[in-house]
Amino acid sequence: MTPDSTEEQVLAAVRERRERVNAAIDEDLPLKEPERLWEASRYLLKAGGKRLRPTVSLLAAEAVADVPPLSVDYRTFPALDGGEVDVMAGALSLEVIQSFTLIHDDIMDDDALRRGVPAVHKAYDVDTAILAGDTLYSTAFEIMADTGAAPENGLEAMRMLAETCTRICEGQALDVEFEGRTEVLPEEYLEMVESKTAVLYGDAAATPAVLLGADDAVVDALYSYGINSGSAFQIQDDVLDLTVPSEQLGKQRGSDLVENKETLITLHARQQGVDVDGLVDADSAEELTDAEVEAAVETLNEAGSIEYAREKARSLVDQSKADLGVLPDNEARSLLEAIAEYLISRGY
Amino acid sequence: MTPDSTEEQVLAAVRERRERVNAAIDEDLPLKEPERLWEASRYLLKAGGKRLRPTVSLLAAEAVADVPPLSVDYRTFPALDGGEVDVMAGALSLEVIQSFTLIHDDIMDDDALRRGVPAVHKAYDVDTAILAGDTLYSTAFEIMADTGAAPENGLEAMRMLAETCTRICEGQALDVEFEGRTEVLPEEYLEMVESKTAVLYGDAAATPAVLLGADDAVVDALYSYGINSGSAFQIQDDVLDLTVPSEQLGKQRGSDLVENKETLITLHARQQGVDVDGLVDADSAEELTDAEVEAAVETLNEAGSIEYAREKARSLVDQSKADLGVLPDNEARSLLEAIAEYLISRGY
Repeated sequence: MTPDSTEEQVLAAVRERRERVNAAIDEDLPLKEPERLWEASRYLLKAGGKRLRPTVSLLAAEAVADVPPLSVDYRTFPALDGGEVDVMAGALSLEVIQSFTLIHDDIMDDDALRRGVPAVHKAYDVDTAILAGDTLYSTAFEIMADTGAAPENGLEAMRMLAETCTRICEGQALDVEFEGRTEVLPEEYLEMVESKTAVLYGDAAATPAVLLGADDAVVDALYSYGINSGSAFQIQDDVLDLTVPSEQLGKQRGSDLVENKETLITLHARQQGVDVDGLVDADSAEELTDAEVEAAVETLNEAGSIEYAREKARSLVDQSKADLGVLPDNEARSLLEAIAEYLISRGY
Repeated sequence: MTPDSTEEQVLAAVRERRERVNAAIDEDLPLKEPERLWEASRYLLKAGGKRLRPTVSLLAAEAVADVPPLSVDYRTFPALDGGEVDVMAGALSLEVIQSFTLIHDDIMDDDALRRGVPAVHKAYDVDTAILAGDTLYSTAFEIMADTGAAPENGLEAMRMLAETCTRICEGQALDVEFEGRTEVLPEEYLEMVESKTAVLYGDAAATPAVLLGADDAVVDALYSYGINSGSAFQIQDDVLDLTVPSEQLGKQRGSDLVENKETLITLHARQQGVDVDGLVDADSAEELTDAEVEAAVETLNEAGSIEYAREKARSLVDQSKADLGVLPDNEARSLLEAIAEYLISRGY
């Protein structure tokens, strides 16, 4: 499979599901009273987004049930024991949780923009943003409670969702803690990335298997697929920040270095004795020149740090594809493999 | 039953359960890594609190199961179908949600003190407080997922918990909206109080019935008991602010009037043509004199507004006691009646 055809396949799979996910948002999170609260809660969800996590979740349902992609209505999906399950609700629930974490994270990081529009605490205010996030939080659980799955499967999906949210909070706390520490081991960084970012992919992939009543081995494999590919996605983000031209990135190349953000790359470089804090002199992304970034990248390349991160991402993607081995060999499974590949082959 | 004996009964019931609830907090929410996050999350729960909601929940379990108070271990409580249910986990889950809402509310209202100690966003910082609240939120769902109830009952308790949280957020949004409005109807105020405060009592009372597998009629009656007594509690708070001496209140009597807080009392007075905004001249609780409060109370008394609120609270308590009529006539039910009575007879 060439990189190009992988990307086309993935973008088509995402595009084909995006409208259905967007329709589900309006169905399951309608605008209601008190209107300002629900407007603020829906604001970021309505602002767009690739819908990559719901796509992973919906494809996992099709892979587990062994049905051709898009051949069955996601709202009345055949459970393995013969009942019907709303796997769209499961997928949407995770997207709603993702939206809540972005709203609260943007307050904590005081980020002004998100998805090309003002962050919720800028478009409204901090109090409204806190409350909008809190509203989405419970709404995600309400949506997940209403999938029509067998009660033991529905309860297990709820338990997993709660555990996922707690781990995301722990990951965010670790991220903050690391900013104040002089030394962080690469393994600690990977643990943080797994909690903060990858568990949501893990839960997105595993939830349909739980709801449909699949074996534990299938549930565990899909969870592992999500954890591994989600971690690779985050590491690739760190690589792209240094290696992709600013025009293509949509922000200044190398901006992580100015912000003193520790990544797998800088942590590896520190272990190799590189003076990471002295890599660039600029104090802001605006002051940063391409020549300065180029020199920093050369130093990091000489230390083998960028290659180290690339290899780590590569091996996580290989692992995530191996995880899928327990599933029937079908088109949806191939698309999940393609998504894992896309997460590290994407240019930006 | 004289007011005194009611109060003694209630305080004894609360005291007898408080140590068990406190022990359950350490068991189900242990201090773990990342330590600062979990310390901040546990901080308010460990700072005390009467544990009135868990007491209501535990008594409801005993009333439904028709067992003598404190005769059965709450962790292995007999379900109606013969299984065992951890009704303490159900009660604790609601207390954890209450703690999360207080942490986020204190940020929004910028309240510096809570339970006699600095609010979490003061003891730590705003970002940590947002994240601590978010952590408690999902932890409450994790605890509720682990009661050992029959799956359909466990799932229903999770669904109710999610719905309760959404309504609390809506109640908080209504409260903020009303501050910016010139006219709020008493019915709208009651709807806000029900969402913001009373649903948590409703859920605390109904959850054990759901977990134990009681009939819908019993679940509904206990929910209604909690809604009615919880609403009465909040209305009584408004009455006490005007009628109890400052030393006994622990804050300046009449401070609601300075803060221009709308209550059932002021909304009724407005309808009677009282110039509520002109009732006191002071701009802060410190400037407020007892004579000024006395004059304001006299005006409100002449308009019948304080009596209106008292009667409303009284009728809600009567209704809540009537709700309990579907339960077996036992000691736990009597204690639930006594709690409803106590909520409006308490001096402060």
